[in-house]
Amino acid sequence: MRVLGVDPGLTRCGVGVVEGVAGRPLTMLGVGVVRTPADADIGPRLVGIERGIEEWIERYQPELVAVERVFSQHNVRTVMGTAQASAVAMLCASRRGIPVALHTPSEVKAAVTGSGRADKAQVGAMVTRLLRLSEPPKPADAADALALAICHIWRAPAQNRLQQAVALHTAKGRTP
Amino acid sequence: MRVLGVDPGLTRCGVGVVEGVAGRPLTMLGVGVVRTPADADIGPRLVGIERGIEEWIERYQPELVAVERVFSQHNVRTVMGTAQASAVAMLCASRRGIPVALHTPSEVKAAVTGSGRADKAQVGAMVTRLLRLSEPPKPADAADALALAICHIWRAPAQNRLQQAVALHTAKGRTP
Repeated sequence: MRVLGVDPGLTRCGVGVVEGVAGRPLTMLGVGVVRTPADADIGPRLVGIERGIEEWIERYQPELVAVERVFSQHNVRTVMGTAQASAVAMLCASRRGIPVALHTPSEVKAAVTGSGRADKAQVGAMVTRLLRLSEPPKPADAADALALAICHIWRAPAQNRLQQAVALHTAKGRTP
Repeated sequence: MRVLGVDPGLTRCGVGVVEGVAGRPLTMLGVGVVRTPADADIGPRLVGIERGIEEWIERYQPELVAVERVFSQHNVRTVMGTAQASAVAMLCASRRGIPVALHTPSEVKAAVTGSGRADKAQVGAMVTRLLRLSEPPKPADAADALALAICHIWRAPAQNRLQQAVALHTAKGRTP
């Protein structure tokens, strides 16, 4: 199973591709950050996020895109940007018939560290170990995107086939 | 000036096209609602919004898209959906080089009724009168979309030319 994890954000949108199955060692295929300038208008920034996500999907052909579920308990301004960037990521996946899975930050932390309240350093350290990397991916958004992909591969082995079938069905109904 | 107003929402996304210039009678070219099923997954719903907005842009070729500025002081769940739907609308416009303008609900109400705290019925009544319609557009989301377009035409006659120039410049820099 090949999963593109997306840690959504307008200024830094973390992206990471992980391949593997639950119970076996995982492989990182790529990691990076899609950036848009903080002083640009929102419209062009969303276009920048779309281009970036499209490039990652084109290059790695993931079977599923795992996106962080956005809550509004954080800073109001940040949350809006996060919600908008996540919408673009989900749109890019769904219109190609690629299933989308959402995981909360605490689900992701619990999956990779064993604790839903782990800090960023702990998540980075475990991502580094689990993917057998020489050093933690930077920035933290990139490590978080990998953690999302790992979380998905480990949490939902049975659920994935169902999601793929549903997404394919939806995409077939699409007007060309 | 031809403006597509968008009152963003996942279940009902109001859309309305108004043509005219400040100081002259305005003309409604079209009004409607893009709907997606409330029980569908978020990804396919965003694809549905994208298809709907694309159709409206294709059919009416607006020079500008006016979108309601989303705040997070309302219901948390609703705000996330509104932010995501608005992101799709802004994305559709920006990747075609069409400028996007954001107006707050109180700016819109003040523009069409004279009061930033007008209720939905008052906004509907004024939209009906200003566009010389036989009855108020329904649902309220459709009337709100028209009010957004009217608000933009009246508020920003000088600003519009600048926005168009900037958006065109951004679109030209786009990879094909």
